[in-house]
Amino acid sequence: MEKFNVKAYGTHAIEADLELLTIPRREATPNDVEIDILYCGVCHSDLHTARNDWGGTVYPAVPGHEIVGKVTKVGSAVTKFKVGDLAAVGCLVDSCRECEHCKNDLEQYCIPGFTGTYNSPDKHLGLQTYGGYSEKVVVAEHFVLKVPENLDLAATAPLLCAGITTWSPLRHWKVGKDSKVAVVGLGGLGHMAIKLAKGLGAHVTLFSRSPKKEKDAFALGADEVIISTDNAQMDTVKGKFDLIIDTVPYVHDVNHYIPSLSVSGTIVLVGYLGNLEPMLNTVPMILGRKSVAGSVIGGIAETQELLDFCGKHNITSDIEIIKMQDINEAYERMLKSDVRYRFVIDMASLKNE
Amino acid sequence: MEKFNVKAYGTHAIEADLELLTIPRREATPNDVEIDILYCGVCHSDLHTARNDWGGTVYPAVPGHEIVGKVTKVGSAVTKFKVGDLAAVGCLVDSCRECEHCKNDLEQYCIPGFTGTYNSPDKHLGLQTYGGYSEKVVVAEHFVLKVPENLDLAATAPLLCAGITTWSPLRHWKVGKDSKVAVVGLGGLGHMAIKLAKGLGAHVTLFSRSPKKEKDAFALGADEVIISTDNAQMDTVKGKFDLIIDTVPYVHDVNHYIPSLSVSGTIVLVGYLGNLEPMLNTVPMILGRKSVAGSVIGGIAETQELLDFCGKHNITSDIEIIKMQDINEAYERMLKSDVRYRFVIDMASLKNE
Ligand SMILES: [Zn+2]
Ligand SMILES: [Zn+2]
Ligand SMILES: [Zn+2]
Ligand SMILES: [Zn+2]
Repeated sequence: MEKFNVKAYGTHAIEADLELLTIPRREATPNDVEIDILYCGVCHSDLHTARNDWGGTVYPAVPGHEIVGKVTKVGSAVTKFKVGDLAAVGCLVDSCRECEHCKNDLEQYCIPGFTGTYNSPDKHLGLQTYGGYSEKVVVAEHFVLKVPENLDLAATAPLLCAGITTWSPLRHWKVGKDSKVAVVGLGGLGHMAIKLAKGLGAHVTLFSRSPKKEKDAFALGADEVIISTDNAQMDTVKGKFDLIIDTVPYVHDVNHYIPSLSVSGTIVLVGYLGNLEPMLNTVPMILGRKSVAGSVIGGIAETQELLDFCGKHNITSDIEIIKMQDINEAYERMLKSDVRYRFVIDMASLKNE
Repeated sequence: MEKFNVKAYGTHAIEADLELLTIPRREATPNDVEIDILYCGVCHSDLHTARNDWGGTVYPAVPGHEIVGKVTKVGSAVTKFKVGDLAAVGCLVDSCRECEHCKNDLEQYCIPGFTGTYNSPDKHLGLQTYGGYSEKVVVAEHFVLKVPENLDLAATAPLLCAGITTWSPLRHWKVGKDSKVAVVGLGGLGHMAIKLAKGLGAHVTLFSRSPKKEKDAFALGADEVIISTDNAQMDTVKGKFDLIIDTVPYVHDVNHYIPSLSVSGTIVLVGYLGNLEPMLNTVPMILGRKSVAGSVIGGIAETQELLDFCGKHNITSDIEIIKMQDINEAYERMLKSDVRYRFVIDMASLKNE
């Protein structure tokens, strides 16, 4: 298979910093779209993969799955894109396309498993896929998204992971004008959850452990902030929420939020992978028909729906633009939650290196 | 308030056997229906309440909330019942009737709390409510159910608790002809879950720890039995079920069943009140958008719907009829799961004592 080289940032080992690398990209096949990457958001998964926090990282690792850019080449069978179009790529670049979930636009739940934008087996070139911390990416048309022209392009990038991860549960659990939604945690995911739930017309509450987040939460569109360590405040929202989106990425007591769910309400975990410690108590779940659920990213059609919705409602992420060369420092700041609310890499910095 | 005495069976203390008592019933007020109890099913909750296993039992305690009988008196405002009609009473005899859940036919989730058929504060006579192990009961018309004439009356009694407890989640999670349902545990609840899911047209699987239950499960209508301790068999149902009804009443590993849920599937716990030990792992929940939920009994309209459905489909419980005087022995046998699948008390035995 024909290929070409591009500059990228990645890492060769768990404890190594990210640095300039050269990686191969395939020449566009008839179904492919070649994209010149203009901006790439920085997700917690990028950091976890670079440092092999979840195991399974194959080095060199090139992260990045919040990709926006311009089409520079299209294969002969491509119909949705032409050279010069804006385009985006999120967490998925392929899937089996034949299983019942792929056929139902749920590629994120593909039975044999989807191909991640980075650190997945590359079906074309062998080895692993390389992400968006690079000059260009070549992706099958089905997995490339259209980007509304009216949005700030850099601030659009985080919609591709932080956005869709919160949009998918909002849609699956049918949030609308009559819904009461709460969000736990105000980071990359949480701030998008507030904006998107608000965009759907819901009443939106932020649960926060600290009053310091209040001002930001209201600015993002929250109707209410509840300090979750204050039992008197927690009592005021007993039985209130149809859906709670819990974005907290570390172990925490989910039982604490169950009383604030309405009868038949659901708390959906999108940030924390691991054991529910302390143990979940079934009593309030049974006595109120409440659910604890999980959700991961979203399918391609649903991601397009999100981008179209954001175009219509003028919703983007709150971001801080960085240079590619600042990525290691950005990771350290992310670990301290020192970002409001997403870093986005300006890829001109890589091209000029 | 005027009242009269009836014979009942109940207990005066945690460690005492149930014995013959005399308890008061109110004279029917304008909205009340007085019922001569013909049969009363024996639920695990009866035993737990008699022995104060959950705390909160007020003595003397008279259990029984699977009540069927004949109307012997109606208040002047009663419109749905007349003397001589068949009638039934389940787990609820009152609720606030004003909260949003009561107004939506979800009396089981009444915000100030429903009045249980036994061991709840009695709004009319003071003290606590007394259940169906008695000659008669007087209940507000709204909480009295119509019984189809074509069903075996004794075998109908368990529909009022075991039936509705499994029917409500089957309906809430929209089980129908295209659904794949699994049931964990084959006891009073489990055997009703199989019959009702089958009645709704679903494909029904029993998870059982022992092959000994196979024959019974097929006789009850199950399409498939999976031995849950056999990993090879568990692998054959990976990703299969839209809904799993988990009726197991003691602590057990819920994680074990999550892989057999389909994407967007739900496992609903109806039998076990307590902590989920070992801890629930979020990874398969997130990667498959799976839910763990709870559910308790059902509302009055939904219970009527169940009775009507059972009348139409000729569904009742598999029972063993006992005398009131055998109740203490029956409790011992229930603790050993030595009943297929529900004891029902023939109340003639109490009247003749
Ligand atoms: Zn991400
Ligand atoms: Zn697939
Ligand atoms: Zn019961
Ligand atoms: Zn109520």
